[in-house]
Amino acid sequence: MTAFPPAPVPDQPAFPPAPDFLARLDGTASDIEAVLENALSAQTEDGEIARPERLRAAMRHAALGGGKRLRPFLVVESAALFGVPRAQALLAGAALECVHCYSLAHDDLPAMDNDDLRRGRPTLHRAYDEATAILAGDSLLTLAFDLMAREAVHRDAAVRIGLVRDLARAAGLGGMAGGQMLDLAAEGRFGDAGTAPDEAGIVTLQRMKTGALLAFACRAGAILGQAGGPAHAALETFGEKLGLAFQLADDLLDLEGDAALIGKATGKDAAAGKGTLVARLGPQAARQRLAALVGEAEAALAPFGPGGDVLRHTVRFAAARRT
Amino acid sequence: MTAFPPAPVPDQPAFPPAPDFLARLDGTASDIEAVLENALSAQTEDGEIARPERLRAAMRHAALGGGKRLRPFLVVESAALFGVPRAQALLAGAALECVHCYSLAHDDLPAMDNDDLRRGRPTLHRAYDEATAILAGDSLLTLAFDLMAREAVHRDAAVRIGLVRDLARAAGLGGMAGGQMLDLAAEGRFGDAGTAPDEAGIVTLQRMKTGALLAFACRAGAILGQAGGPAHAALETFGEKLGLAFQLADDLLDLEGDAALIGKATGKDAAAGKGTLVARLGPQAARQRLAALVGEAEAALAPFGPGGDVLRHTVRFAAARRT
Repeated sequence: MTAFPPAPVPDQPAFPPAPDFLARLDGTASDIEAVLENALSAQTEDGEIARPERLRAAMRHAALGGGKRLRPFLVVESAALFGVPRAQALLAGAALECVHCYSLAHDDLPAMDNDDLRRGRPTLHRAYDEATAILAGDSLLTLAFDLMAREAVHRDAAVRIGLVRDLARAAGLGGMAGGQMLDLAAEGRFGDAGTAPDEAGIVTLQRMKTGALLAFACRAGAILGQAGGPAHAALETFGEKLGLAFQLADDLLDLEGDAALIGKATGKDAAAGKGTLVARLGPQAARQRLAALVGEAEAALAPFGPGGDVLRHTVRFAAARRT
Repeated sequence: MTAFPPAPVPDQPAFPPAPDFLARLDGTASDIEAVLENALSAQTEDGEIARPERLRAAMRHAALGGGKRLRPFLVVESAALFGVPRAQALLAGAALECVHCYSLAHDDLPAMDNDDLRRGRPTLHRAYDEATAILAGDSLLTLAFDLMAREAVHRDAAVRIGLVRDLARAAGLGGMAGGQMLDLAAEGRFGDAGTAPDEAGIVTLQRMKTGALLAFACRAGAILGQAGGPAHAALETFGEKLGLAFQLADDLLDLEGDAALIGKATGKDAAAGKGTLVARLGPQAARQRLAALVGEAEAALAPFGPGGDVLRHTVRFAAARRT
């Protein structure tokens, strides 16, 4: 990662610089990598050999060595607001990251988005084969709940079961998987031409497909911290706004970004005829909407005072990223 | 279902007849259908509309209207040994059944076993399309953990988190998904010809692919009943033996069964060159092995006395079934 990216719009209000934000983000990404490396190592925690080897290797391909680990970072930083020990939040964040990585592996499949490139490397089914990619995705999703259920996440089983339940709802029919389904439908994949989503439909789609896991990441900190209702609600709102901002930035990147920097194909959404807010509003209005969402996300953090600064930087980072 | 099937080998010891066993099995299947119907209804338990509709319909196609529901039955009957309220065991069993149904949907995919027929109906990707089948499988797997985490499974969160953890381990890399991977490898799918599994390899494969969920079903009763170590171990052994017997019976059915009765293609294993124990041992020796496994499973139930009779009938049923 390079310097802190520029603000998305010129008239954005001044904000204290954070020379250490990217170092902080990188540090958590390294820690998450280590947790995932350990969870996918050759030996299980019981000392048994984790096998079959081909499936384990494919899970590693999908889960290791990639990404900013934004979702785990949000878990760690929202949990830090309540003094949750970092190791606990990292394990919960790694569980969430397994869900994210499984979804990328399945979304890349030929029957889905048919992508060859992910984070600058071959997608899982290109590096292995379709059957292995399906099974590795399934296994990462399953591992997510294995990790989240571990005592090291929180000594109170009620906290862990709350995380399991919330994660399942964020990932399933009413969340991420449902959002991917709506996204395929918006392409006209199921022969329902003429039912392209309107603006509200696009927001619903994005709230489910991308927003649900990002919002869960923020709520997870409140659950881990056994936070009271107002703090929980504040992080919920923050996560929702951040999720929408993230997706809008993603759509802008797809339109304007550099494929070499991003490590995956760009312009695919337009080619697929996907209705994005950028296509609907135009880039200029989309950028204004993005700035407004960032402002709303920051406002939601007001109850945390300066303690919320890292999360404030995070939503700015998510909105302004170039990769 | 018709009359109680005949004993698998002629010299099998006498066993009290159970005119109501099949009625009992059918009754639990009906109850599981109702629980799954409710979990996949148009409204969520919060009163919201469950959507998107196409994904929900595909999940229903995969999960409803099929099968003996043997795994939930094992959960219910093993839990009954400890006086667990039936409604709790049914919900846990329905969660497990979601995992089973997701695995069937993914295993049927063109990139996997490429099956067109399942329970006498088109497989999920034939009834819908591949992308929908992948997402519906993902969503059923996710729903399993949502259901298992619900308070209605057990008021003690520690019990529920134990079930979540154990289910995840039975379903993932070291369990069912890993077993499916070994099964594909045994077909020579990954170019490693000459590495067809030996007898021990076949047993490992089957223990993971089919046995892990069946064994979990039996352990789940002990977990729900907060049973002591010996009872837990007895059900663990019973479940393992039952799982091996079930798979051996399945292999015999694939060789000798009637596709019209079974509702899926037969002879596929032989055609795919899969190493099964039946192919290795021959049908006669395989039947003897099956009878021995049934005996070992029954022996494991000794601590439960007559209370274990329904489970005794269950392993006989699993071994002798014709569909």
